[in-house]
Amino acid sequence: MASIENKSVIFKSVPVGYPTADNLPVVSSTIPASAPEGGLLIKVLTISLDPYMRGRMRDASKKSYSPAFPLDQPTAGFGVSKVLDSAVAGFAKDDLVVSPVTNHAQYMAVPAALVGTFKKVTNPYNFPLSYFVGVLGMPGLTAYTSLEYVVGPLKAGETILVSAAAGAVGQIVGQIAKKRGLKVYGTVGSDEKVKYLTDKLGFDDAWNYKTETDCVAAINKHIPQGIDIFFDNVGGDLLDAVLVTANDFARIACCGQISQYNAKPEELYGYKNLMEIVTRRLKLQGFIVGDLVQQHPDVLGKFFAEVSGYLHDGSFVYQEDVVEGLENFADAFVGLLKGKNFGKLVIKVADE
Amino acid sequence: MASIENKSVIFKSVPVGYPTADNLPVVSSTIPASAPEGGLLIKVLTISLDPYMRGRMRDASKKSYSPAFPLDQPTAGFGVSKVLDSAVAGFAKDDLVVSPVTNHAQYMAVPAALVGTFKKVTNPYNFPLSYFVGVLGMPGLTAYTSLEYVVGPLKAGETILVSAAAGAVGQIVGQIAKKRGLKVYGTVGSDEKVKYLTDKLGFDDAWNYKTETDCVAAINKHIPQGIDIFFDNVGGDLLDAVLVTANDFARIACCGQISQYNAKPEELYGYKNLMEIVTRRLKLQGFIVGDLVQQHPDVLGKFFAEVSGYLHDGSFVYQEDVVEGLENFADAFVGLLKGKNFGKLVIKVADE
Repeated sequence: MASIENKSVIFKSVPVGYPTADNLPVVSSTIPASAPEGGLLIKVLTISLDPYMRGRMRDASKKSYSPAFPLDQPTAGFGVSKVLDSAVAGFAKDDLVVSPVTNHAQYMAVPAALVGTFKKVTNPYNFPLSYFVGVLGMPGLTAYTSLEYVVGPLKAGETILVSAAAGAVGQIVGQIAKKRGLKVYGTVGSDEKVKYLTDKLGFDDAWNYKTETDCVAAINKHIPQGIDIFFDNVGGDLLDAVLVTANDFARIACCGQISQYNAKPEELYGYKNLMEIVTRRLKLQGFIVGDLVQQHPDVLGKFFAEVSGYLHDGSFVYQEDVVEGLENFADAFVGLLKGKNFGKLVIKVADE
Repeated sequence: MASIENKSVIFKSVPVGYPTADNLPVVSSTIPASAPEGGLLIKVLTISLDPYMRGRMRDASKKSYSPAFPLDQPTAGFGVSKVLDSAVAGFAKDDLVVSPVTNHAQYMAVPAALVGTFKKVTNPYNFPLSYFVGVLGMPGLTAYTSLEYVVGPLKAGETILVSAAAGAVGQIVGQIAKKRGLKVYGTVGSDEKVKYLTDKLGFDDAWNYKTETDCVAAINKHIPQGIDIFFDNVGGDLLDAVLVTANDFARIACCGQISQYNAKPEELYGYKNLMEIVTRRLKLQGFIVGDLVQQHPDVLGKFFAEVSGYLHDGSFVYQEDVVEGLENFADAFVGLLKGKNFGKLVIKVADE
């Protein structure tokens, strides 16, 4: 049987602090040039780099919502691919497919057991395929469902603050909130991103947390009316500051804590203001998009129709940061954890 | 006009750390022996000491859900009193009344503006009057409404942990949860209280946090099935430990943080485990009973009917810690903050 040379990112060792290329080397192997029994052979086009993947780079004995990557196997995540060969009904050569378990590789032999996670891409407006792992994929759906079901219903005139507001989820959160009539504020890590939020995305105001380091002072300065909703991707001192400045009955969507993902135990942030949860009658809620979709399956169609409509009519802006080539995986991923990307980070593995 | 000598607890100065009798002296004055225009003259019988009152002993410039006590005025809270003289329709001599703004005093001239906060006591089962500031008053209503509307609906078979479980709110929370078919666990500050919970109140298990000081180990030992609901009156290391051990989707009712009320800023507990809110998809919600009653006004009748029924048929146990005499106010209140009381703390000011 003919075979294909295939480069993959391998989970070689558990990182301490930020991952390195030693933890995540790119390794060549060969795979058969046809689909396995009941499965698919796919060519990977675009993979999505998302902060939650840091949590999967752990010792498998630690339980969490997302399984640990198995050691010495390819890492995986959301990706868009093209079918090269199909041994299963419903898929044909040249179909474009998206799946959350796409290997970080050039090619993938999809076993029968995983075929169910692959969906054909429906693309009536001819968006770039990378949109299906971004604004029209998991990050967009995360923003949409959590605004609706975790901190919703949103009320026109309310004030929302979004952290990591230029990121994959943050930029969608802000723009949906604007569509719902909210006052929208964001924190980001550069002046360039501040300008992007206020000039391109229509945020009411934003600030650079690297230059305005006193979070309470920054909130009081930029948001004198106070915060009704905080959409938190970052954690740390900003979350602690929101607790002590939020309006009564404020709702906090705990989407992630990127500031803490690489902290060693002794470096973890110590939150001082939890008493404010009582006095201000706050609600903090963690969520994973998959649970929300299971609980509200009809959200999928609503999300896709609404957000693709906004993208098509030009009322939504969507910034991507496209890195070329699988060999840049570890560097790009660390850049994401450090906020160096500008917009949704994807790796273009191959042309269609 | 005749006058009455009247001892009152006066808010003399803002405490630093635990309050003292210097902050809260008992002072004698005289008041007229008849009701003021449109008001009432009442004889105070029983006053309720509740941890939230510590929050009112602050500088008036700091905003919170409950107003600061005005300096040099009597402190006030929930109390049961007898009407000595009425200058307002609807109240007559010898009526028994309950109000959240009862002065901590022997007598009170209730001005017309405050009459609306006084309700006549309805006592078909002849319960001790102190019940109306405890199990049938604010603490009982706090337990009942928050179990229903903050962490509810309760499902039979779920596991709940209650901190300060022998206290005014905690003992009611535990017993309501048992009635709803939950497995109920508690933390308390003495072995005697542990025995009280397991032997008298029907808790499934309980432990003394002063002897089992490793909170994570204690949870794992006593509650191997994990926690679905945490009813938290205490905060601090127990809350941090619950975050890191709770079952997925656990709900946390943030009722109070008595461990933090007297902490100086540098002594505040630093919570390390907020990332778990995301990974375990936890919900933490602060609440004040008054808000919940406003949102669900029909809860009042349901609460009173159900809980008074349980007290009458003997299926609820209610332990009170009755201190005699207003002059013991400061000592008793500090004892409450330190957990020295056994059951709901009230001061008996006078016989009926």
